[in-house]
Amino acid sequence: MTGAGTAAFLRSRWVRAPEGVEELDPAELAPGFRAAGVPAGIKRSGKPDLGIVATDGDAASAALLTRNAAPAAPVTVCRERCELDSLRAAVVNSGNANAATGEGGYRDAVRIQEVAAAELGLEPAAVAVASTGVIGEPLPAGGIEAAIADAAAGLDPRGAVEFERAIMTTDRGPKQCTLRAGGVTVSAQAKGAGMIEPGFATMLCFVQTDAQVSDPDEALRGAAAGSFERITVDGQMSTNDMVVLQATGAAGRPLPPGLLDAVLLQLALEIVADGEGATRVGRVDVDGAASADEAERVARAIANSPLVKTALYGRDPNWGRIAQATGMALAGAELPEPSPDWIDAAELGAEMAEAEIGVDLGRGEGAAHVFFSDLTPEYVRINSEYTS
Amino acid sequence: MTGAGTAAFLRSRWVRAPEGVEELDPAELAPGFRAAGVPAGIKRSGKPDLGIVATDGDAASAALLTRNAAPAAPVTVCRERCELDSLRAAVVNSGNANAATGEGGYRDAVRIQEVAAAELGLEPAAVAVASTGVIGEPLPAGGIEAAIADAAAGLDPRGAVEFERAIMTTDRGPKQCTLRAGGVTVSAQAKGAGMIEPGFATMLCFVQTDAQVSDPDEALRGAAAGSFERITVDGQMSTNDMVVLQATGAAGRPLPPGLLDAVLLQLALEIVADGEGATRVGRVDVDGAASADEAERVARAIANSPLVKTALYGRDPNWGRIAQATGMALAGAELPEPSPDWIDAAELGAEMAEAEIGVDLGRGEGAAHVFFSDLTPEYVRINSEYTS
Repeated sequence: MTGAGTAAFLRSRWVRAPEGVEELDPAELAPGFRAAGVPAGIKRSGKPDLGIVATDGDAASAALLTRNAAPAAPVTVCRERCELDSLRAAVVNSGNANAATGEGGYRDAVRIQEVAAAELGLEPAAVAVASTGVIGEPLPAGGIEAAIADAAAGLDPRGAVEFERAIMTTDRGPKQCTLRAGGVTVSAQAKGAGMIEPGFATMLCFVQTDAQVSDPDEALRGAAAGSFERITVDGQMSTNDMVVLQATGAAGRPLPPGLLDAVLLQLALEIVADGEGATRVGRVDVDGAASADEAERVARAIANSPLVKTALYGRDPNWGRIAQATGMALAGAELPEPSPDWIDAAELGAEMAEAEIGVDLGRGEGAAHVFFSDLTPEYVRINSEYTS
Repeated sequence: MTGAGTAAFLRSRWVRAPEGVEELDPAELAPGFRAAGVPAGIKRSGKPDLGIVATDGDAASAALLTRNAAPAAPVTVCRERCELDSLRAAVVNSGNANAATGEGGYRDAVRIQEVAAAELGLEPAAVAVASTGVIGEPLPAGGIEAAIADAAAGLDPRGAVEFERAIMTTDRGPKQCTLRAGGVTVSAQAKGAGMIEPGFATMLCFVQTDAQVSDPDEALRGAAAGSFERITVDGQMSTNDMVVLQATGAAGRPLPPGLLDAVLLQLALEIVADGEGATRVGRVDVDGAASADEAERVARAIANSPLVKTALYGRDPNWGRIAQATGMALAGAELPEPSPDWIDAAELGAEMAEAEIGVDLGRGEGAAHVFFSDLTPEYVRINSEYTS
């Protein structure tokens, strides 16, 4: 996975790698960061399920939290008790989402924050808390506090792989990278939309850099708008989603243009590709809409249509299903007569892992795109066989 | 299926049968109507694929047409060339939706209307046209005109079963009834949301009665609002959906309250139960919403969530997935902490063909309900294996 002067990690046809980007050992964090992952006994398998990533000194930061109106306790704790623009650390557990767990769950999340802060010698407000896994069940009583101490004691500049392992759930493989370009390093670890037991498609992503980022919130929102905000697996919004960017500024240089976008887009595409049971990723491009909002609505209707998603799975260049989803999204409008002239579905029928669909509505200048996964028998199997 | 003084047809737990409703032989149409179904060579199987239902004299009528912005040619013909309040006949073909077929498709639909009108001795504007089946392919050139003549010549007061056969596609069984109550008769034939080859979930329904219906449009809209407008199989809106009500008034009596509602709701539930690969029907009741619109939004988010639909299939009383869909529909709002106190998912886990889910948001007085089918491996198989 490592290559001098190239970045095999940025492999999607849809990702534009900045000039001269170099891929480093993915165990390495950006300078000034350390991480660890340890078992806390939450996952029944005994695999690592608690991770910490932390800066050695001050950092500017930003965090994006799910907009779900029934958020998990750690999301509420981040919103209410963190200074999201100056986070020093994040403590993450997998195996239990601490969602729909009531006041007890909130107390557990606060306790995790406080114990981690004490172990790290930080203010609690500088420690973000994140969880992913089964929902509606309380966190197990024992083990977590000791694991936090273990993780804090084991923080390592080369701990990114261990941290990634601790936050993964049903992910088929790690989703992480360490890249260097323009004199700065960016490391990132994500876990994806494989849904957990009776839980949801939680997406977590942690990004570290030694670049100077004057407005981390703007940088993160901009990069997420082109990546995590453009993907859908099954149209469902998680209770636990979280993306955190931390920037120490120690390199004394800004992020090269496009680097953060490329990293987050590649990670987002890996999350889609790793959607439950997914075998292919599609990109739908809608042009010629009356507005950007309209284009977005049409793109999402197509991307979330089970008929289009099964066509993506079945290698079926079925433009009629795209016409139907478009017509549904624009109910009441006047459209051109559906035809292959304005719908390009050819790649649906081709044997390629990443397929593009094009729709030109011929109504205006609005454009939008969305990335999505196919719908497979495996998705149904995974999501129907668990009985809570 | 026939029982004196009862109506086994109205068998769903959610359908309230009016007092004294009696079930007649489903081959019989309401007095004053005749129907026929014949093979026209559109279905490759050679099965009946062209049907006509017609009144002997004048009738008041109403029609509901899909709001899809890319409607099929017959829908456009109905909208542009029919007097929908005084329809005398409907001519319906299965096996080809005549959708996404351009100007040629429109000319074909007009031609079908004109040939049927000539055979029946009616004005073209009194003849509705409907189609269901494969989309994006022109209707076959030969056979249809001769079949229209055959069907017109074969119209029979006991032709309802033949008509139903001619409009069915992948339906697992017929969806029709003839009921008598309050001195009037109602017959109805529907075909359901089994999707056709590369096509969509077209729903067609034709209702005949000898009752006096002073405002057929209001009556039909009211009954459809509680039935066809409350169902979802996969959240997709067809290019071809159509519901037609014709009332001769010959019985000199009005429809008994609730009769039309009961008939359309039972047919709607059969369409859901016959959704592609479906094994169960769910009903989600949302109460305590800030408004009826909000309740509807939440109910549809739950009913269309693939997580909830796979839980329905998997007999999984997974209230967490319902909380997540609710939170997604109400992103940005403040909800009570999700718990089994406000989400009743018990019946998801029970072995019953019709399962109810309850959600009480505790925010206001808004309420809504939606009926939906489960998502099964068979749905994926059906919709991915066809290659156009």
